[in-house]
Amino acid sequence: MSESTATFSGGDNNRNAAEEVSRIVEQSKELQESATALISRNSQEETSLRQRALALDSNIKRVNSFIASSVKKGTLDPKDAEKLVEELSRARYTLSEGDAAAFLPSKSYGRFLRMFLGPINVYATRKDVQLKVKEEYNNFRDRTAYLFLFFPSLLLLLRSWLWNGCFPAPPVQLYQAWLLFLYTGLALRENILRVNGSDIRPWWIYHHYFAMLMALISLTWEIERQPDCSQKQKGIQLFLKWAIMQGIAMLLQNRYQRQRLYTRIALGKARRMDVVWGETAGVEGQIWLLYPILFVLQAFEAYVGLLLLKTAMVGVVSEWQVVACGILLIIMAVGNFTNTVQTLVDPHDWAS
Amino acid sequence: MSESTATFSGGDNNRNAAEEVSRIVEQSKELQESATALISRNSQEETSLRQRALALDSNIKRVNSFIASSVKKGTLDPKDAEKLVEELSRARYTLSEGDAAAFLPSKSYGRFLRMFLGPINVYATRKDVQLKVKEEYNNFRDRTAYLFLFFPSLLLLLRSWLWNGCFPAPPVQLYQAWLLFLYTGLALRENILRVNGSDIRPWWIYHHYFAMLMALISLTWEIERQPDCSQKQKGIQLFLKWAIMQGIAMLLQNRYQRQRLYTRIALGKARRMDVVWGETAGVEGQIWLLYPILFVLQAFEAYVGLLLLKTAMVGVVSEWQVVACGILLIIMAVGNFTNTVQTLVDPHDWAS
Repeated sequence: MSESTATFSGGDNNRNAAEEVSRIVEQSKELQESATALISRNSQEETSLRQRALALDSNIKRVNSFIASSVKKGTLDPKDAEKLVEELSRARYTLSEGDAAAFLPSKSYGRFLRMFLGPINVYATRKDVQLKVKEEYNNFRDRTAYLFLFFPSLLLLLRSWLWNGCFPAPPVQLYQAWLLFLYTGLALRENILRVNGSDIRPWWIYHHYFAMLMALISLTWEIERQPDCSQKQKGIQLFLKWAIMQGIAMLLQNRYQRQRLYTRIALGKARRMDVVWGETAGVEGQIWLLYPILFVLQAFEAYVGLLLLKTAMVGVVSEWQVVACGILLIIMAVGNFTNTVQTLVDPHDWAS
Repeated sequence: MSESTATFSGGDNNRNAAEEVSRIVEQSKELQESATALISRNSQEETSLRQRALALDSNIKRVNSFIASSVKKGTLDPKDAEKLVEELSRARYTLSEGDAAAFLPSKSYGRFLRMFLGPINVYATRKDVQLKVKEEYNNFRDRTAYLFLFFPSLLLLLRSWLWNGCFPAPPVQLYQAWLLFLYTGLALRENILRVNGSDIRPWWIYHHYFAMLMALISLTWEIERQPDCSQKQKGIQLFLKWAIMQGIAMLLQNRYQRQRLYTRIALGKARRMDVVWGETAGVEGQIWLLYPILFVLQAFEAYVGLLLLKTAMVGVVSEWQVVACGILLIIMAVGNFTNTVQTLVDPHDWAS
C-alpha cells in the first residue's frame, strides 16, 4: 500500500492508476476464490464432523441402555456397570461441552425465538463470542436492576410531592411499557443463552413470559378514573414498592451470582455459560442474606396478587385486568418460591 | 454399529460392553481433537481473509479518491477515469456481494437489534441459510397479510352483529397487542435481513418502529367509555377498515414482489437477499394496479390521522392517545407516500 502511494505521487498518472486498478481487480478475484474455497472446504469438514458427532451421540445412548438392560437381566455386574456408565457420561460430557458441541445439532430454538426472529442461527460457534454474549447479558441485568430501583421510586416520590396522592396514567403507562420491553428483551436473551448451552432453569424464562403478559395487560388498565383514586391505585402503589424491593434483590443477586460463578469456574465445576437466576445463588454466608430477602419478596408478590383479587371481589374495581394481574402475580410468586426451594433443597439440581 | 450390536447379543457381556465403552471414550477424544483443530484452523484462515478483505476495501476507496482528485487537477483524462472507476466498482461488487463478503466486518447491527438481543451474531455465512431466512420472512408476511384481513373484519362484523354498534375494549386490545407483537417481529426480522445484506429501504423499518409505537399507545387508549361510544369509536372503526385494505394490498404486494424478485434474479439484476417492501413492486402491467391501491391506502391512512386530530380538536375525545395516534398515522402516510413516489420516479433507486 505504501508502495502504491509512492507511485501515485510520481509522474504518469494515467498509467499508474490503470495499473493500480487492474491489480485491485486481480486481488478481488483471488480473494473471492479463496473465500469460496474456504467456505466449501469448511462446509465439507463440518458435515463430516457433524456425522461423527451424531453417530457417537447415538452410540453412547445405545450402549447406555444396553448396559442398563444387561444389569437387569443379570448378565452384567452392577459395579462394573456403574464404572462403565461413569466413563460413558464423561465421554458424553466431552462431546457436549467440548469443541465438538458446535457440530451437534443445537437444542431446539423454541417457539419464542422463532416467533420473533424467524429461523436465524443464534448459536455462536466460538466460545469467546458465547462468553461475550453472557457478559453482556450480565451487564444488561445490572443496568436493569438500577432502573428497577429508579423508576418506581421516582413514581412514588412524584406521587406524594407533585401529584397529591394520585398517579396520572401516562407516567405509569410509560413505566409499564418499559417493563414490557425489558421482559421481552430478557426472554429473548435468555432463550439465546439457552441455545448457546446455558443451563438457565426453564422457570425463569417462563417467569418472564408471565411478566410480559402482565405488563401488556396492565397497559390496558385504566387507572386514572376519579373518584377514589387512592383506593383504586392501592394495587399499583404496592406493585411499585414490590418493584423497588425487586431492584435491591436483583443487585444483590447479580453480585453474588458473579462471585459464585467465578468461584465455580475456578473450581472447574461450572461451565461458563451457566446463568444462575438470582434465586439460586449460594456462596456460603451470603446465602443467609439472600434467601430470606428472596422469600420476603415472593411473599410480598403473592400478597399484592391476593390484594388485587380482593379489590376485584369487593367491587371497588371491577376491571378484568385487576383479576388477571392478581392471578399472574400469584402464579409467579408460587413458581419463584417452588424453584428457590428446589435449589435450596438440592443445590446440585440447578446446575443439572 | 451393526457389528457391535451383533457382539452384544453374544456371550461375554462384561468384556464386550467394556470394549465398546473404551472405544467410545477413544472416539470422543478424537472427535474433540478434530473439532478443536478445525475451529482453530478456521479462525486463523478467517482472520487472514478478513485482513485481505479489509486491505482491499480501503485500497479501493483510496484509488477511487485518487482518481477523482487527478481528474480535478487535470492530470487524468475523464474518460479514462470513468472506465477505471467502473472497473473499481465491479471489484467492490465482487468483494461485497461474493463469498468474501462473509469476512468483511458486517454492517453495524443497529441499536434496535442490540437492545433486544444483545451482541449476538445474526449474520449467516452460508448463502443457503440466508435464503432460508429470506424465504421464511416472505412466508411470515403472507401469513400476516391473511390475519391482517381476518382480525379487523371479524371485529367489524361482531360490532354490528353482536355488540350493537359499540366495541367492547378487550377484543380490540387483543388485536392491538397482536399488532404490537407483529410489528416488533417484522422490525427484528428486517433488521436481521439487513445485517445479512438485504437492501430493504430504511424507511420501511422506521415505519415499523412508528407502527410499534402506535400499537403501544393505542393499548393504553380507553375506548369503552359510554355514552357516545359510536362517536368516540369512529376513529377505531376507520382504522380497522384501513387495516382491511392494508391486508389486501399486502397480499397483492407479496405476490408481485416475489414474481418481480424472481424475474430480477433470473436476469441477474437483483441479489437474492433483496427485500422489496410492497410499495416498490413494478412488474409491467401490475404496476398500474398496485400503485393506485397504494396511493389510495396512503391517502386513507392520512385521512384517518387527520380525523383523529379533528376529534381531539373539537373535544369529543380529549385523550392524548388520540392526538399521538393521529400524528403517527400522518407521519407514516407521508413517509410511505414519499418512498413510493421515489421508487416510481427512480426505479433503480430502490435497489441501490
